[in-house]
Amino acid sequence: MNLDNIRKAKVGSIELANASIRMKNNALKLIADALSKNKKKILNANKKDIYLAKGLSKALLKRLELDSVKIDEMVKGIKKLIKLDNPVGNVLSAVEIDKGLELYKVSCPIGVIGVIFESRPDALVQISSLCVKSGNAVILKGGSEATNSNRVLFNLIRSAIAKAGLPEAVVELMQTREDVKAILKLNDYIDLLVPRGSNKFVKYIMDNTKIPVLGHSEGVCHVYVDKDAKLGTAVNVCFDAKCQYAAVCNAMETLLVHKSIAKRFLPVIIRKYSETNVEMRLDDESRLILEKSVNKKIINNYKNKKTLKKATGKDWKTEYNDMIVSIKVVSDLDEAIDHINQYGSGHTDAIVTENKSVANKFMDVVDSGSVMWNCSTRFSDGFRYGFGAEVGISTHKIHARGPVGLEGLTIYKYKVIGTGHVVSDYSGRKAKKFIHRKIKW
Amino acid sequence: MNLDNIRKAKVGSIELANASIRMKNNALKLIADALSKNKKKILNANKKDIYLAKGLSKALLKRLELDSVKIDEMVKGIKKLIKLDNPVGNVLSAVEIDKGLELYKVSCPIGVIGVIFESRPDALVQISSLCVKSGNAVILKGGSEATNSNRVLFNLIRSAIAKAGLPEAVVELMQTREDVKAILKLNDYIDLLVPRGSNKFVKYIMDNTKIPVLGHSEGVCHVYVDKDAKLGTAVNVCFDAKCQYAAVCNAMETLLVHKSIAKRFLPVIIRKYSETNVEMRLDDESRLILEKSVNKKIINNYKNKKTLKKATGKDWKTEYNDMIVSIKVVSDLDEAIDHINQYGSGHTDAIVTENKSVANKFMDVVDSGSVMWNCSTRFSDGFRYGFGAEVGISTHKIHARGPVGLEGLTIYKYKVIGTGHVVSDYSGRKAKKFIHRKIKW
Repeated sequence: MNLDNIRKAKVGSIELANASIRMKNNALKLIADALSKNKKKILNANKKDIYLAKGLSKALLKRLELDSVKIDEMVKGIKKLIKLDNPVGNVLSAVEIDKGLELYKVSCPIGVIGVIFESRPDALVQISSLCVKSGNAVILKGGSEATNSNRVLFNLIRSAIAKAGLPEAVVELMQTREDVKAILKLNDYIDLLVPRGSNKFVKYIMDNTKIPVLGHSEGVCHVYVDKDAKLGTAVNVCFDAKCQYAAVCNAMETLLVHKSIAKRFLPVIIRKYSETNVEMRLDDESRLILEKSVNKKIINNYKNKKTLKKATGKDWKTEYNDMIVSIKVVSDLDEAIDHINQYGSGHTDAIVTENKSVANKFMDVVDSGSVMWNCSTRFSDGFRYGFGAEVGISTHKIHARGPVGLEGLTIYKYKVIGTGHVVSDYSGRKAKKFIHRKIKW
Repeated sequence: MNLDNIRKAKVGSIELANASIRMKNNALKLIADALSKNKKKILNANKKDIYLAKGLSKALLKRLELDSVKIDEMVKGIKKLIKLDNPVGNVLSAVEIDKGLELYKVSCPIGVIGVIFESRPDALVQISSLCVKSGNAVILKGGSEATNSNRVLFNLIRSAIAKAGLPEAVVELMQTREDVKAILKLNDYIDLLVPRGSNKFVKYIMDNTKIPVLGHSEGVCHVYVDKDAKLGTAVNVCFDAKCQYAAVCNAMETLLVHKSIAKRFLPVIIRKYSETNVEMRLDDESRLILEKSVNKKIINNYKNKKTLKKATGKDWKTEYNDMIVSIKVVSDLDEAIDHINQYGSGHTDAIVTENKSVANKFMDVVDSGSVMWNCSTRFSDGFRYGFGAEVGISTHKIHARGPVGLEGLTIYKYKVIGTGHVVSDYSGRKAKKFIHRKIKW
């Protein structure tokens, strides 16, 4: 790692932080143009990476591999980003402290962001663009399998930034495995670290740095089907939450069912799951209900496939990221909430009910970044929330929580404007009093 | 440390988080009443602490010692807090994702706050009250010299909380030195740590925990006197920023002066400082100006007191917290800004000028939590900013920056309300499109 480049990025971050939205958007436009114009160059570099990455699983290879369509999508993403409002320079609140003394809270970039990401070249483009738009410098460390692709993309982005009249040093790329360890120690330079990748990797990062980390380590999401749920809604939501895309953090892992509706609901959803080859881990009560149910045939069928198992204590804390669901019958709303607050990961949890006050209690008391009523946990996502671009999803409880958009890459500063005001006038016996009146701006 | 009590605090935090503002304010009222009614008991315990704390410096004893007036002030502080708006349950933004599918961003408490504070019993009351108002549980660890006072205050607060019908477990007190180490490891229970005390102590905490820390390690604050400054304003602001109260983090440590105004300004301010026994550390240029100035007599006088010294490189990074100031002549605005961004601590920095565009550039580019124009750095404070109550001042660049009020003890959650919406309808060939229209609420 070249510490001098990190220093340059920090210095450059001050200039970028104060660049006009016109300049930042122009830089983004030039990045998009550069990608479009240099498709061949990018794809050739990517071919090298694919050739060298023979040991990778099919899923990982798919992430690593670029094609013309993927590059078009990157370009589209940047063009969307250009259309978003400037996240910095906005007055968040304003107060008249005293006559002629005013306080403004103004949004601004954080400074230098460190991002450690998987072997996925499109991530490099997305992250760099987000940082340009939000006025932050970024230190990138991509997965080693994408070395050649990343290098080409990085060079194109740097040139575009320079062409736009901004300091190219605000984007810096590191590529060796040792660089990860080095980045973790850069707490004097990096203000926020965003690790992407497996839960284990994110946890490793969190445990080994003093830099604040934005990320989530786990997504153990629940759907609770209340006694006042509409059966059709419950089935649709629970099916979507588990099956629409099981490998992601906002998919449901545990289904909680109120005992009063369990006899009607469970046979239906279990049949639907069984038809889709979802493996189920049942608690004793749901197992009992199932055995008494009319769907014996299907269940026997299913049992033979060995996909109907007994849930153990471990299941309640497990993020399967797969077509597996644990199922538990609860005796009331409180038991559901307690279960979620105890075993959940504070990511996303949903209730299905027609009872508004029950829904409100659930959403108030469940301590998660996203709480949902009569819709699928799969909606928990920056794009679906309308943030335009997503930095990641945070299960932390400070700074940014839930899906994080551009706003998560900003903080604020206070600007105080006076006309010679001094504190000594406001202390002692003849102390002047403060007004503290909200200003509309 | 009793881990069971920490668990109880976490469980209780969920109930407190959802308590109505009426209940929380009632708990605060009962705390205030209990303090008023039990003055004698509190003062007796405090006498024990004072008796046992014979080794303490005068300043520390003053912080430790309570009297009737100080208790009245605590009560007044709580009554002010009662009047503040509820910081939780506020809708921060709302979006219609699609017809019948709405997203609300709602403020909520963080959860469990850990506070490690100096031997100052009024801090215990202030912190507990802030946490009750913001709906957070709090794990307190006070300085050991205040053991008896803290124990009495803690018991009164606990009883008042229970009397208000809230779980008393949400306030927990630890008292042994080993407890500090134990708290640092409670990252599964404590969501945010607020250390108070010396810079060294805060830094130790930051370096030894995985819990996010809210605090500031240093306050190296600057005033820059621009060439277009009004002389009177410059003198007043620079005198107030240094002398109104020198022992605090928002006092000025370094005075930067534009070379064009230095010959007129420096002799005046140096004379004023010298009359107040401020020790000055001058760079070569300001020294030269001084030697040529008309105030020879005063300067010689001052020199004899040995309070006029040569500044060394170390001075630019030093927080004196005392009647000492370093002075440097700069050739332009950019040099001033660069100096501040290089040597400052990102706390509070001010400019004195009549030139609006110069002031705006200074406030935009200086990368500090508070930036000021024509007023004293000493205004950088939660009470003066109108926050009513102050948690502390943060020089971090995530979550909360600058003076932190009740808002710094809150975060948000997303509530998504649908009518059976599933993600599969929004993917694939016939994908429905999102509306993403802002809702006024």
